Amino acid sequence: MKYWCFRDGFGLDNLILLERETPRPGSGEVLLEMAAASLNYRDLVVMRGEHGRAVQPPLIPLSDGVGTVAAIGDGVTGFDVGDRVSPLFLQHWMGGAPPADLEAGRLGGPLDGVLATHCVFPASGLIGIPAHLSDAQAATLPCAGVTAWSALSEPQPLRPGETVLIQGSGGVALMALALAQAAGAQVLMTTSSEQKAERLVALGADAVIDRNAVPSWARAVRKATHGLGCDRVLELGGAATFNDSLKTAKTGGTVILIGNVTGSNAEFFLPLALTRRLRLCAVSVGSKQDFEQLSRAMEQHGIEPEVDQVFGFDEAPDAFRALETGGHFGNICIACSDAA
Amino acid sequence: MKYWCFRDGFGLDNLILLERETPRPGSGEVLLEMAAASLNYRDLVVMRGEHGRAVQPPLIPLSDGVGTVAAIGDGVTGFDVGDRVSPLFLQHWMGGAPPADLEAGRLGGPLDGVLATHCVFPASGLIGIPAHLSDAQAATLPCAGVTAWSALSEPQPLRPGETVLIQGSGGVALMALALAQAAGAQVLMTTSSEQKAERLVALGADAVIDRNAVPSWARAVRKATHGLGCDRVLELGGAATFNDSLKTAKTGGTVILIGNVTGSNAEFFLPLALTRRLRLCAVSVGSKQDFEQLSRAMEQHGIEPEVDQVFGFDEAPDAFRALETGGHFGNICIACSDAA
Amino acid sequence: MKYWCFRDGFGLDNLILLERETPRPGSGEVLLEMAAASLNYRDLVVMRGEHGRAVQPPLIPLSDGVGTVAAIGDGVTGFDVGDRVSPLFLQHWMGGAPPADLEAGRLGGPLDGVLATHCVFPASGLIGIPAHLSDAQAATLPCAGVTAWSALSEPQPLRPGETVLIQGSGGVALMALALAQAAGAQVLMTTSSEQKAERLVALGADAVIDRNAVPSWARAVRKATHGLGCDRVLELGGAATFNDSLKTAKTGGTVILIGNVTGSNAEFFLPLALTRRLRLCAVSVGSKQDFEQLSRAMEQHGIEPEVDQVFGFDEAPDAFRALETGGHFGNICIACSDAA
Amino acid sequence: MKYWCFRDGFGLDNLILLERETPRPGSGEVLLEMAAASLNYRDLVVMRGEHGRAVQPPLIPLSDGVGTVAAIGDGVTGFDVGDRVSPLFLQHWMGGAPPADLEAGRLGGPLDGVLATHCVFPASGLIGIPAHLSDAQAATLPCAGVTAWSALSEPQPLRPGETVLIQGSGGVALMALALAQAAGAQVLMTTSSEQKAERLVALGADAVIDRNAVPSWARAVRKATHGLGCDRVLELGGAATFNDSLKTAKTGGTVILIGNVTGSNAEFFLPLALTRRLRLCAVSVGSKQDFEQLSRAMEQHGIEPEVDQVFGFDEAPDAFRALETGGHFGNICIACSDAA
Repeated sequence: MKYWCFRDGFGLDNLILLERETPRPGSGEVLLEMAAASLNYRDLVVMRGEHGRAVQPPLIPLSDGVGTVAAIGDGVTGFDVGDRVSPLFLQHWMGGAPPADLEAGRLGGPLDGVLATHCVFPASGLIGIPAHLSDAQAATLPCAGVTAWSALSEPQPLRPGETVLIQGSGGVALMALALAQAAGAQVLMTTSSEQKAERLVALGADAVIDRNAVPSWARAVRKATHGLGCDRVLELGGAATFNDSLKTAKTGGTVILIGNVTGSNAEFFLPLALTRRLRLCAVSVGSKQDFEQLSRAMEQHGIEPEVDQVFGFDEAPDAFRALETGGHFGNICIACSDAA
Repeated sequence: MKYWCFRDGFGLDNLILLERETPRPGSGEVLLEMAAASLNYRDLVVMRGEHGRAVQPPLIPLSDGVGTVAAIGDGVTGFDVGDRVSPLFLQHWMGGAPPADLEAGRLGGPLDGVLATHCVFPASGLIGIPAHLSDAQAATLPCAGVTAWSALSEPQPLRPGETVLIQGSGGVALMALALAQAAGAQVLMTTSSEQKAERLVALGADAVIDRNAVPSWARAVRKATHGLGCDRVLELGGAATFNDSLKTAKTGGTVILIGNVTGSNAEFFLPLALTRRLRLCAVSVGSKQDFEQLSRAMEQHGIEPEVDQVFGFDEAPDAFRALETGGHFGNICIACSDAA
Repeated sequence: MKYWCFRDGFGLDNLILLERETPRPGSGEVLLEMAAASLNYRDLVVMRGEHGRAVQPPLIPLSDGVGTVAAIGDGVTGFDVGDRVSPLFLQHWMGGAPPADLEAGRLGGPLDGVLATHCVFPASGLIGIPAHLSDAQAATLPCAGVTAWSALSEPQPLRPGETVLIQGSGGVALMALALAQAAGAQVLMTTSSEQKAERLVALGADAVIDRNAVPSWARAVRKATHGLGCDRVLELGGAATFNDSLKTAKTGGTVILIGNVTGSNAEFFLPLALTRRLRLCAVSVGSKQDFEQLSRAMEQHGIEPEVDQVFGFDEAPDAFRALETGGHFGNICIACSDAA
Repeated sequence: MKYWCFRDGFGLDNLILLERETPRPGSGEVLLEMAAASLNYRDLVVMRGEHGRAVQPPLIPLSDGVGTVAAIGDGVTGFDVGDRVSPLFLQHWMGGAPPADLEAGRLGGPLDGVLATHCVFPASGLIGIPAHLSDAQAATLPCAGVTAWSALSEPQPLRPGETVLIQGSGGVALMALALAQAAGAQVLMTTSSEQKAERLVALGADAVIDRNAVPSWARAVRKATHGLGCDRVLELGGAATFNDSLKTAKTGGTVILIGNVTGSNAEFFLPLALTRRLRLCAVSVGSKQDFEQLSRAMEQHGIEPEVDQVFGFDEAPDAFRALETGGHFGNICIACSDAA
């Protein structure tokens, strides 16, 4: 098997392509022949070595991927060779309350990720994926897809008649747009260019605000909601957008904390939350049950994730660079299957 | 003003058209010039005198209606003459947990209802209604519309990817169909004739089972859900359908108790609920906040209630007979405005 | 190892003591040397052969038990030889929504139960238990204890200031009493004798109604709650108590469906639920996460289950007879450890 | 009637004692003869003129108070002369979701408050209070008491076995301690002196950490919870404690945002919330239904708010100064009745 690894340190210079013997699945384990992987912003943070002490080299990167079952270990039921499955981003979270060691179970750091031609996972950490998706599309579900689903679930599911604000046009944002439409909500979006705004409208966004053209976008959002604010705000930006995101939420509304693309140290003007009784719910992907619900909704509505570009397995570093550049619309993926 | 009244007893023979001076709204009250009213199954139970001791003649029947503000009493804010509004079915329930005296606040018994050319209500018991609806359509919201909304709310809102079973083709059932579609769910329906089945499919039902053609409809529903059963079942039938409704719910699923059209004394085989951890949630219309949410969803999706027939104000007894016959598809309404 | 088995059919005549070689735990499995088991009403239903087609002989009975880890199979982490643990009543339910095959994972039918000197379970189906409990006390947790906890959890946890009605004085009822007290609620109980009533008061029940002395106990409960009814009612009786239980719940209240001791075919007068917006939540034990929460609460409050009597392993049939007689106060248990 | 008023500006120099004719209650209104008032930290913010544009002089300060019904306007039901009642801090919030104009309905700014011998309120904005409380104790409920209750309610009620961290020893903190004990939780507290720590232990806190003696109190809290962190954290400090509060919450835990005593501009290190899936719920007092639930719980458990000191009506400015000094333990109150 071949695999990419931050062997001696982080940074793209340390991401090298290696080869080793393909492992056999142990008791309770399954060997996957990987078909595709997908990048998330978190993978950039890991690549830069900024993820904190728990994530250290050597490390196979990337949490999102899909493959087919190549071999099955002792005592495994529920999977057949040839099944197309994805590993859970959070290997230990089956459902209900998150386990205390949630962070320890993340693929792509601290656990080895999916940027490899073959991977072994515990059977409990695998899940079947919808048949109507291409491999690249399917690869985006474990982190980006499940995060989008969870962002519309907490603390109460999004409903028809409600208004949701979604920031940006990355993989989570576009999947959240598709799911929010399926749930019958009104979707407002913010983006950074006229061209992206047009594409978002074409995908069904009810209104799109160009943050560059309208710097006081929070005011624009409140105006678009008749001064009330949004029932739900998906805060993907981080430090640069945090306080403005709070301003766009209605009294009693929910702000979903997802990202920190513009930085991790936000200033939080507390009265924005206190006087209007906001709820801020951090969404750390989700459980296996969340994944199952996402898959059902995608199958019923024929939802397909937007794939911006698929790099070859040998071009993995270019995929990181493309994500860093930030011009993407949807998910940046890597094919794993051709390289075996 | 004119009004219909069960003056000396119940039964259609005792439903008579009377006239009295139009009242002036007292402090905190509003006078409505009624435009339309709508019938629910509950109104038949009241008409037959079977509603229990709390509901006694003399009584103006019907809970569902709409009118325009004709005069405003002292201390009332938030309403202008000419506003089109509906009275709440449950006059005392603003939001949150239902009040202990919930039953005492119902229009159409024990409180006088809306089958009149003019009515006076406390301002707190009124709510604006969506502009895109005709009077007859708007008249169906207070009980039938809010019930359908609540039936998709408890204990958690319906979501995309979930499956809901709705029984029949009355006002609640058809509104629930429209709202469940807006919420992105898969909708199964049962009905009693091929003709109604065709109309339900035309309205967007994903599958319709003719209970007359398929007596073991519960089994058919389970088969249609790959043996799993439905996430949510709207139990509208009562005694004759109760146990079968339980059988169509999935493990951990929800059965919404709404109606008792076929009788009030159901046999309940407890293990059907116990072994599969069902939740049975009785939905008694809803609060003012539920009504507001319903209106927002209807406005956003342009949902229009199905009106089967609109009777003239003088034909009110015929409207009761039409409902009793049971051949209707949607709501049976009465125009109140022409008769003043 | 020795084990009791309904080998050729159900009924106490068919419950025989057998011996076979103690098994070795397979991959992912754990061997327990059992210390104690505990009986639930469900075990009587199984013994009588009335549990339905899915539960068939040969069958080792009883779902509730505790033992110590005697051997550990390949790939098992988190357990050491000597740990005191209990198997989950529902082997497949870790947390969140119940799995579709919930019923298939029950110990004591369809799966073999714990009335044996040794048992093998998947490691995922085991859980550590509080240290302050005797073996007999600990044996009561998997079904009776977790059921009591769940009965105070759904759909929202019991709170200080709320009133809960608990029926009877079996294992579930007494554990629910202890947990409801810990949660700061007011506890009303019904029982069948003056002597039991005195013991319930001694355990801390705020009021006890003797159903034999006060046949119209539902009215007595409403009176004791100033006419409002209870926030929560634990319906343990089944057919004979169902409708009265509904009458004791307040408007918007919750009835927890747990038992069917007096029969499975209840008459359900639907308006009792419809007009007062009741929620009926069937509680089918609970998940592993529920068990963990129960254990934490018991440890913090030093709660000890009431054990009525502990039979020797050889006296297992007598334990069934004692439960059938119905004079018990708390749990009837069987020691497993002495008999090896 | 006499009343204190920020007549020409904010600051204690502008707080003057005035007199005017006692008003008569209009339609739907009730006149109260005030008995006592209580101060909250928010009243200091208002006094300093730092509450934002919506709160302007002339203003009668203080939101928390209690009085007896002295006269009743037209159309008011449910109140008798002589009843002891409190005005709701949020006059417009009856239950369920908070209204969009939540901030506009606050007593003590923007609406006139309770620091007067007589006040008129809409009947809908009044609520009866528990009989076992002194006037000063009762005066603390509308804001401090209801806030403490809500802080243990969102998004799910506190349960036995859970651990809650409460900061400080003001009115909200001490009431939260009493309510959390009633709910069966384990209570950790932080405070600023050894003397206060002793008093908190005497009141029943399970553990108290002196922030001055243990500057790394967040680490101490995690250690006291076996490294897991608390299920719930009541964040009362604001800017100086915010990030540390996040560190003391467990994975999937809840941080209740209540106060900003040490400043409004908090630094928020987003990964603290993101990686451990925290929920931050701002609690803005609560609804009338929350108040009713609080009263029930207090009555059942005989809970009495801690009153640090009761100033005479003429000494109102001294009460503000005492609160500003910060040495109080519990609530600082003002008697209104003696001054009429």
